[in-house]
Formats: sequence, structure tokens, C-alpha cells
Amino acid sequence: MDFTIRAATFEDCKDISRMILELAEFEKVSDHVKITQRDLEQDGFSKNPFFHGIIAEVPEHLKSREGHTKIGYSLYFYMYNTWKGRAVYMVDLYVMAEFRGKGIGKALMTKVSQLGLAAGCTQLNFTVLDWNKSSLDFYLKQGCWDVTSELGYHCMRCEGEALQHLAQGEL
Amino acid sequence: MDFTIRAATFEDCKDISRMILELAEFEKVSDHVKITQRDLEQDGFSKNPFFHGIIAEVPEHLKSREGHTKIGYSLYFYMYNTWKGRAVYMVDLYVMAEFRGKGIGKALMTKVSQLGLAAGCTQLNFTVLDWNKSSLDFYLKQGCWDVTSELGYHCMRCEGEALQHLAQGEL
Repeated sequence: MDFTIRAATFEDCKDISRMILELAEFEKVSDHVKITQRDLEQDGFSKNPFFHGIIAEVPEHLKSREGHTKIGYSLYFYMYNTWKGRAVYMVDLYVMAEFRGKGIGKALMTKVSQLGLAAGCTQLNFTVLDWNKSSLDFYLKQGCWDVTSELGYHCMRCEGEALQHLAQGEL
Repeated sequence: MDFTIRAATFEDCKDISRMILELAEFEKVSDHVKITQRDLEQDGFSKNPFFHGIIAEVPEHLKSREGHTKIGYSLYFYMYNTWKGRAVYMVDLYVMAEFRGKGIGKALMTKVSQLGLAAGCTQLNFTVLDWNKSSLDFYLKQGCWDVTSELGYHCMRCEGEALQHLAQGEL
């Protein structure tokens, strides 16, 4: 299929915001999404950005039923592993339903890997929902492994009032 | 107990490297540690650092049996969550065994939370090994929750030859 992968720009934030919501709907958590187009513009495209992004785009004649030509994305950031050093973290990998199965997701992931290696990273990290078997199978087929199942690492989080309390040194 | 928490500097990398190894020994994976003092110096203290750090230090008269005054650390970096936005990730939180139970770990975590909130973050994220019950209990007591157990997120990783293949678009 005819598509291109390129670095995301400020002007892509509207479409990224739309696709973040589509992905959350698929994951059945769209009410959890608080991020707006403006947040993405500020957080990804000002000095010291919190993330970087790439976009999958199709030519006009292949646009989606709703008229979109930006039909997939990945957001990533650089991180650190105290055993292995520089690493890249893939926050999201998304391709619109009607464009799946054409190698676009793989191409996005390939690009994130290339960017990571170029920056001296030795790991690509991400998370997957354990019920999302098609994604899990896709990632395992790419040679990825499940750190949680194999080593027992659990993702932990502190937010909201608990984070405020923690920062105040109270509890 | 008399201790201070301060930002880590280039000169702390020798002690951070020592403590990373101590932590890995506790986690029974010290053979996995490839990071050296020099890697930490380059990756954390050059332009666009991959991480930031804080150090817990005691006065000379309270130094450890081996003569160390730098007795704990945390490394962290800023990240992004596509639902909630800016977040801070705590890579490691470590206090030397003979200094535990004195509030130093809590003080390190409080500082990371304060730095995260000051940068506009709404989440503190980290991982814990599921067999490390004392750490898990400590974090749950601070109001943290287990994203893996409650939502089913699994940490995934691609590295080594698999990452090279992925970047080449082969498989």
C-alpha cells in the first residue's frame, strides 16, 4: 500500500488528538483521556518536548471513509535503564482500523526503532494490555518479550491527591 | 536521622554506579548491569540528558561501615502519557541497607514527586518486582496503585538482535 512515515509537526496535533481518542475507544477507556490538541502542541512542540511523534500518511486518493489522510501515529520519548543505559519508549502505536494489515504498524515501529538506535539506545520499551491478544501476538512476532510475565515487573503509579500528599511529605 | 537530599552532579556518578550495582545484587541480577560510571557521566550530565538524579547524603560522622556518605539515590526522567499528559518516571529508588527504615526512601520519593509536580506532571510512574513485597507494601502505603494488576498492562521490550532486525524492517 502507498503510505509514508514522517516526523510529526505542530500541525499534526489535531489528527494525533483524534487518533488518541480512537485508540482509547478501542481500549474501552475513552473517558480517561484528558489530553487536548492544545496540550499536545505545548508538550510536544515547545522547547524540551515531553515526547516526539511520527505520522503515517496516505495519498489523497486513498483517504479514509471520513476523509482523513493521516491514518496512523506513534509517540515516543527517550528514557534510561540503569542496567543497560539509553532506551526509547513507544507510548502509542496506532493505525486506523480500515488501514490495518498492510504493514503500516510495522513500518511505524521500525521507524521508532531506527530513531532509537541512532540515538544510542539498546532497548525499545512499551506496554500492552494483556487482553489485547492481536497486539501481543504482533509484538511477540517482532521479537519483543514480555518483561512482566518473564521477570515479574509491575507498572506502578501515583497520581491525584496521593501524588499531592507524597510531594508534601504527608501521609 | 540527619541526612540531606540534593540534585546529583557529575561527581556523584561513581557512587551512583556503586549503588546501582548494590540494588541489582539485591534484585539478584547484578550480571545484567552493563552501565559504568562513564556511561552515567555521559548520559546524565551532557546536553539533553537521558535522566536526572538526586542523592541522599549523611554527614561524615554518620558514614556507612565502608566509609560512604552518599547512601541513597533516585534517578528519574520526564515522560508522556497520551491520556493524562506530562508525567515523571522514577527509574530507581535505593537506600543502602544499613540506612533503611529512617525515612530516607520516602524523602527521595517526595523530592521526585515535588520535581514532577513543578514540571506540570500529573503522574509518577515506576515499576516494582512482584516478589519484592516490602517495596510493594511501601509504595501502596504511599497511595500508589498497581497498574499491571488493576488494568492488565504488561511491560514489553525489544533489544539486541531483535531490535536490529526490527530497525532493518526484516523478520
